[in-house]
Amino acid sequence: MHIVDKPSFADIEAAAQRIAPCATRTPLLQNRFLDEQTGRRVFLKPETLQVSGSFKFRGAYNRIAKLTPAERKAGVIAWSSGNHAQGVAAAAKLEGVPARIVMPEDAPAIKLENTRALGAQVITYDRYREDREAISYALAERDGGVIVPSYDDLDIIAGQGTAGLEIFRDAAALSEPLDALLICCGGGGLTAGCALVAEALSPETAIFCVEPQHYDDHARSLVSGEREVADTSRPSICDALLSPTPGALTFPINQRLLTGGLVVSESEVEAAMRYAFRVLKLVVEPGGAVALAALLSGKLDERYSSVAVILSGGNVDPRVFSDILTKGS
Amino acid sequence: MHIVDKPSFADIEAAAQRIAPCATRTPLLQNRFLDEQTGRRVFLKPETLQVSGSFKFRGAYNRIAKLTPAERKAGVIAWSSGNHAQGVAAAAKLEGVPARIVMPEDAPAIKLENTRALGAQVITYDRYREDREAISYALAERDGGVIVPSYDDLDIIAGQGTAGLEIFRDAAALSEPLDALLICCGGGGLTAGCALVAEALSPETAIFCVEPQHYDDHARSLVSGEREVADTSRPSICDALLSPTPGALTFPINQRLLTGGLVVSESEVEAAMRYAFRVLKLVVEPGGAVALAALLSGKLDERYSSVAVILSGGNVDPRVFSDILTKGS
Repeated sequence: MHIVDKPSFADIEAAAQRIAPCATRTPLLQNRFLDEQTGRRVFLKPETLQVSGSFKFRGAYNRIAKLTPAERKAGVIAWSSGNHAQGVAAAAKLEGVPARIVMPEDAPAIKLENTRALGAQVITYDRYREDREAISYALAERDGGVIVPSYDDLDIIAGQGTAGLEIFRDAAALSEPLDALLICCGGGGLTAGCALVAEALSPETAIFCVEPQHYDDHARSLVSGEREVADTSRPSICDALLSPTPGALTFPINQRLLTGGLVVSESEVEAAMRYAFRVLKLVVEPGGAVALAALLSGKLDERYSSVAVILSGGNVDPRVFSDILTKGS
Repeated sequence: MHIVDKPSFADIEAAAQRIAPCATRTPLLQNRFLDEQTGRRVFLKPETLQVSGSFKFRGAYNRIAKLTPAERKAGVIAWSSGNHAQGVAAAAKLEGVPARIVMPEDAPAIKLENTRALGAQVITYDRYREDREAISYALAERDGGVIVPSYDDLDIIAGQGTAGLEIFRDAAALSEPLDALLICCGGGGLTAGCALVAEALSPETAIFCVEPQHYDDHARSLVSGEREVADTSRPSICDALLSPTPGALTFPINQRLLTGGLVVSESEVEAAMRYAFRVLKLVVEPGGAVALAALLSGKLDERYSSVAVILSGGNVDPRVFSDILTKGS
């Protein structure tokens, strides 16, 4: 028996076709001042502008659109701190599929509200005492329903890879070979999907995952060759990136294809969010700003002169955003 | 003698060619939730993403790129509350031309700082007691220099019209005929430029200018047929749109080509800014949000089912933005 352990490039192209009627084809943005400040050619992929405010819609829709009629009736179940929750809720709503989402009770209010507003049933849990996967599987056991994982799933990885497909095709249309691509990384699904696209379309591009301090499990795993585990008791403003360890499916892909992992501090993340507000005029959430933070704080070797950066999400509470904005003034 | 009183469509196309190497080709964005909420197909033109954070760079660069060698040496002079200031400063810097900008001392700090950071010399004045045009002409008289007006100038109108060119061409590429176009309006340069493009490419599109309360001089002038004057002693958060009266060059164009003028309240503007933050993930300044505010507050007749909306600028102080964001929560 052959175990399929990664989506093929054709799977990612099929995902792009599948999500096209519903997903936003986000642009590839350039900013003259950002180029001047960094001394490079920078291309921003604002997945903040994606349906549900993050790239997560891509994978969720790709998975949910493939459900059988019986599965659609039973509905979907997911666990998420908020962006996958909203992506699943939005995709389920569009497909007319009921959705139950297990979310931490201390998730950003905007993420809880948006998920409910999209018609999903939200089940909250205590992040420090309860096991969200156990809760989800118990729900599936009791009432039926298909689990939609947030990264360790071939359809999810293929769906997230469509962001990479757009980046490399848009860069090619501009005749801009990319020296490096920086990707915000939690469980590694977006990273793996984009790395597979790079392997097919632009193998010379160096792919880096970027993580917040204390949650640098990918960076450490890439060095050790084993799936290292983060101490999830440490606080972080990057609520979207708190997966404790690289995925079982995503890590082998990323281990093979990534050049390395970069790590940024909370103050670097906050500075990047202020920069996005002041210069780029984009709303970026903490977890969505880590790749930009790595670039702005000089974490990327100077040899990479043409760099694409994914801004992976923009779902941030107004008060949190305001506090970060006014810290700098 | 024939007086040229408007740019031709060919002038606007030439402006597009002239600014192409330096300006950002801003995208035309769609958002599924915005469409659902308004019951229309909405296309957003985020000039917030333009160089200098507003559409003003387009006209300024188009004018400055046409200066003679002698004029370049003498430099440029402009007056502006801030967006034209930054547009002129950015264009002058790119062309290696010295710039002096007359700005109100109570202009948003971000606009004063950005204008200075772009290398322009800023001369401040008291908005309630001094005449900025007199100050500017006195500077030109004393030291030489070419005045770059903010709207009543054929090259400026042609430059701003390039935003409209992109809107109608992108909409055509999507096979989307536009029923209406909503444009944030101060002196009427952006409105006139875009209206001239619509006349050439999409004459069936209804063009509306949008103004903030107390500064509805265009709306009233379109009704009366004469250039009405706003009471500039009234406060407004829309610092970018406080021109007292329609331009001498822009008004005849707008009078002939506009369907009407819409007016929004300050609370409608603030609600639109919060919506842009929460749903669109875009940073929009008060004056840049009036067209979106008109749409969201139901000011546009329901018969227009496919609507383009210009978000004209995103230069807003962090504290002002934070105050507006957290008012709603």
